[in-house]
Amino acid sequence: MTYSIQTRRTIRRYTARDVDAALLNRLLTDASRTQTMGNLQLYSVVVTRSVEGKAALAPAHFNQPMVTQAPVVLTICADFRRTSVWARCRQAEPGYDNLLSFLNAATDALLFTQTFSTLAEEAGLGLCFLGTTIYMPQPIIDALKLPQLVFPVATLTVGWPAEEPPLSDRLPVESFVHDESYHDPTPGDIDRFYAAKEALPENIEFVRLNKKQTLAQIFTDIRYTKKDNELMSRGLLETLRKQGFMK
Amino acid sequence: MTYSIQTRRTIRRYTARDVDAALLNRLLTDASRTQTMGNLQLYSVVVTRSVEGKAALAPAHFNQPMVTQAPVVLTICADFRRTSVWARCRQAEPGYDNLLSFLNAATDALLFTQTFSTLAEEAGLGLCFLGTTIYMPQPIIDALKLPQLVFPVATLTVGWPAEEPPLSDRLPVESFVHDESYHDPTPGDIDRFYAAKEALPENIEFVRLNKKQTLAQIFTDIRYTKKDNELMSRGLLETLRKQGFMK
Repeated sequence: MTYSIQTRRTIRRYTARDVDAALLNRLLTDASRTQTMGNLQLYSVVVTRSVEGKAALAPAHFNQPMVTQAPVVLTICADFRRTSVWARCRQAEPGYDNLLSFLNAATDALLFTQTFSTLAEEAGLGLCFLGTTIYMPQPIIDALKLPQLVFPVATLTVGWPAEEPPLSDRLPVESFVHDESYHDPTPGDIDRFYAAKEALPENIEFVRLNKKQTLAQIFTDIRYTKKDNELMSRGLLETLRKQGFMK
Repeated sequence: MTYSIQTRRTIRRYTARDVDAALLNRLLTDASRTQTMGNLQLYSVVVTRSVEGKAALAPAHFNQPMVTQAPVVLTICADFRRTSVWARCRQAEPGYDNLLSFLNAATDALLFTQTFSTLAEEAGLGLCFLGTTIYMPQPIIDALKLPQLVFPVATLTVGWPAEEPPLSDRLPVESFVHDESYHDPTPGDIDRFYAAKEALPENIEFVRLNKKQTLAQIFTDIRYTKKDNELMSRGLLETLRKQGFMK
């Protein structure tokens, strides 16, 4: 085992050194060895290096500083557009304007994204994965001029690490692995699975500062609220429709 | 660069040798270093080793022989159930029964899946990713007893390789990488991007055998038809509703 997964961490601060275009191209080419549906490679990657381009993307990512400070921002998209154009150029009628096809392409895009991440980290680059990509997809679609059947599903900020943050905690493997069928966690299981996370000094401090009773309330009441999720779900569905994926 | 991505191939035939439980556990543990939303690890993995378990899953995967012949089948699920149970045990009210939350969890699950795949292949295992998982999710949900807020998004058959198939083709990197904004492919671009794929002897033979005019028609008329996609999209939406993700 040579890939250093045990020591990987998200990197949010980068040195001034640029990411060489030839290196980036090689990593993207290598990542394309990832298997995809029917070997159709239902993804595309928009590379943002310009100051204006990053500034246009930043608001969609809640102006997190990585977006404007990283030398490179990659927006990885579920893409049935290129395949559909190919079909139309070849007397074939594409039928990919539906939810299943969106999920097929999103799957291809996310698997590709993670292979790229592994290879980039192995090459010494530091990455931050921005889950915000699907919170407000429309401004990203506008900024990158994404046509119908192209939908952003992941964003990576990429650069050379200027920090080495501590490793973050993980749940024990028995919390997410199930033998033969799903075993619903009992309250006792929950206590066991979450004990280490809840006992972390930074989490205890976070709960205190926010005047909450439990760590779980930080997630449900502050970070990922029902109200925000439902509002953004409606926006997501509307944007999926606009991009042609909900026929 | 030590991970052998350039030579990775999908493996569909396996030797009789079992996959050691300790090895599998280590790979799943290591893969859980993958970043996730709020570090919540919104996924779970059901491990199927039993003959009956594999037989129950096979029909949902069109009875592809890997499912019953591989020593291990992993079904990776988007999972907001464990997190929601945790919240309820901690006086917190979860709000994750919506489309955005499904996509958040599916993203976590797919990134985890690909890290696992990389690590497993590096350990010498052979894998086949089954995209069929989201075609007919209901029988998988039934077979694995998945509760609400758990949804299968990926399946891997895992074993020791008993074949070394040729490397499959890939589109050139310029077909899927865009500088600063999306550049819609022209008919000339399409010719360039797909020339090598269309010229492969096996693809020419496949078109001839199926009495089609073009390779693209193999995809639109036989492998992934509009009619099937729309039928399965309706099923997918219905199952998302049943699993509690479309409030």
